[in-house]
Amino acid sequence: MKAAVWHARQDVRIESVAEPSAPPPGQVQVKVAWCGICGTDLHEYTGGPLYIPLGHPHPKTGVQAPVIIGHEMSGEVVAVGEGVQNFAAGDRIAACPIIGCGQCRWCRSGSMAQCDHVAFLGTSWTGGALAERVNLNAYQCYHLPDTISDEIGALVEPFSSTVRAVAQGQPGPQDNVAIVGAGPIGLMALMAARIRGAKRVVMVEVAERRIAAAKLCGADAVIDPTREDPEKRALEITGGEGFDMVMECAGQPATVLMAGRLTRTRGRLVIMGVFEKPAALDLTDVVFREKTISGSMSGYGLYEETIRMMTDPRFRGDVLITDRIALGDLVERGYYGLLNEKDKHVKMLVRPE
Amino acid sequence: MKAAVWHARQDVRIESVAEPSAPPPGQVQVKVAWCGICGTDLHEYTGGPLYIPLGHPHPKTGVQAPVIIGHEMSGEVVAVGEGVQNFAAGDRIAACPIIGCGQCRWCRSGSMAQCDHVAFLGTSWTGGALAERVNLNAYQCYHLPDTISDEIGALVEPFSSTVRAVAQGQPGPQDNVAIVGAGPIGLMALMAARIRGAKRVVMVEVAERRIAAAKLCGADAVIDPTREDPEKRALEITGGEGFDMVMECAGQPATVLMAGRLTRTRGRLVIMGVFEKPAALDLTDVVFREKTISGSMSGYGLYEETIRMMTDPRFRGDVLITDRIALGDLVERGYYGLLNEKDKHVKMLVRPE
Repeated sequence: MKAAVWHARQDVRIESVAEPSAPPPGQVQVKVAWCGICGTDLHEYTGGPLYIPLGHPHPKTGVQAPVIIGHEMSGEVVAVGEGVQNFAAGDRIAACPIIGCGQCRWCRSGSMAQCDHVAFLGTSWTGGALAERVNLNAYQCYHLPDTISDEIGALVEPFSSTVRAVAQGQPGPQDNVAIVGAGPIGLMALMAARIRGAKRVVMVEVAERRIAAAKLCGADAVIDPTREDPEKRALEITGGEGFDMVMECAGQPATVLMAGRLTRTRGRLVIMGVFEKPAALDLTDVVFREKTISGSMSGYGLYEETIRMMTDPRFRGDVLITDRIALGDLVERGYYGLLNEKDKHVKMLVRPE
Repeated sequence: MKAAVWHARQDVRIESVAEPSAPPPGQVQVKVAWCGICGTDLHEYTGGPLYIPLGHPHPKTGVQAPVIIGHEMSGEVVAVGEGVQNFAAGDRIAACPIIGCGQCRWCRSGSMAQCDHVAFLGTSWTGGALAERVNLNAYQCYHLPDTISDEIGALVEPFSSTVRAVAQGQPGPQDNVAIVGAGPIGLMALMAARIRGAKRVVMVEVAERRIAAAKLCGADAVIDPTREDPEKRALEITGGEGFDMVMECAGQPATVLMAGRLTRTRGRLVIMGVFEKPAALDLTDVVFREKTISGSMSGYGLYEETIRMMTDPRFRGDVLITDRIALGDLVERGYYGLLNEKDKHVKMLVRPE
């Protein structure tokens, strides 16, 4: 079968590889329908390896580069291993990429992504979703209802991350929420906060196309820091208080500093962005105004909730999916398209046939 | 009467000033027994004004420099204004320095220090505690039991700040807590965490005298980052996890970065330190390990609880109070002693007679 294989930084090849064996006990084999390209895929390509074990096997799975990549997937179960009871051939599924040890405190308390020995589909697992077929643990799979297409199903994984981050900040119907950064994750965070019932969700973004996407995704207002003072505008929008909850989805030193300042007294800043090095916050402001900051990683534990939320009409998959490409176009059209013209694309899906 | 008056940066004078008038309705007049020197007093002296209104009156109290300073106080009520029912002449009290508007969301929800129009005893109030007498709002006063001396009573205010910070991180009897920085606040945070029932409280400190003080105050262990790798040592102490809760009481860029890294997966970092400018945290670590960071300011709302905690034998006021000086020695022995030989002193009390 064809698969996208990461060999080294800036060396991802579309190759013919052996099909996975029949699924071992506890696993299922899935024929991949669609696989999205994630920001971390780009990081692995341009600056990796980040999660891909290179030169040393993963302590739990034994996997090391070269590895088949891809993790934002939907597909159809084609075979089930011994002991698997809740999936059968023909079932449509979305997958959670997280494979924990299953034994530790975090695996056993809804935080498998925090397992010290965690492996991920597409970086340190025996297969990846940018391939025609992949074997997955049954516990990684979630049924897709008929109302969710295969294309939308490939958005379950990234959307679940924003659902978990929103759950961490718990916006209520009285809460004004700001999202900093209208990339794919920011737009999904916007929708997650809206569907969760925040009073008002405001996007902070500078790029014109992304501002337009945020409006289509239901932003009640957009703050463009190149055109107006964001703190002043935040106070105007929120009646002088600042935002009850802010979600940082841009991962830049300037945006996280601003995100902290947009947060009201005793408000919550939830960080989803990933930073190349330590980044500064105005900690005196955090102390004096008793703000709370937390990080959120993955959507582990909230996949069924995520899938239910995606049936809400405010989930605008049509705005999110801007491109559908073939596996052979992954690097040229996919990676370089996203790297060089990122404002022209939101989520790019790959059909791995 | 004699009082310490802040005129400008590096210009604090011991002067004769008029005694306060008879207390107006809702206020009491207090004869000050002892007043501690706080880190913010030193900041006002060396680099102020920080909170002292200079050249513009405080929006609520109308006060501006020159002002009588001092806020960590105990004393005896000598007169009560109209309508005051819960205090009488002869009552021994400690005082909370926070004077909010009384109307806003924060004043009315246990967070008066976060009031947008807050005034403080000793910076923006009609009097200060480095004077023989001061008028206070009755709501600022808390009765001292016979078991707490006037000297210990002067520690209620700073200790309450640490009680609030500990309450924010909620250490339970299973929790390992690290305190970064064994200055007066760090030592009090150590005692607050112990009295609150944390499993193990570990101090992180480099200065020899402060390490000795931390041991006297009951530190279960001390990590000296100049002698050992603090992260490695933290893992050893905590069975490989890192600290459930870390309190940052040093206010330095290097210490807050370290404090974040000493915090375990999904643990809590509470910041009490004040920073001259934005300071960096390893936010990717915060995201991947889903850590929570919060700021804590003042002990508002927890004074009675604080006073009860101070009757616990693990509250070691004898270690904290290292110096007792006269008002006339405030600048030379007090400020310069603390600035030039800070490791020789913990808390310095001033007798304002």
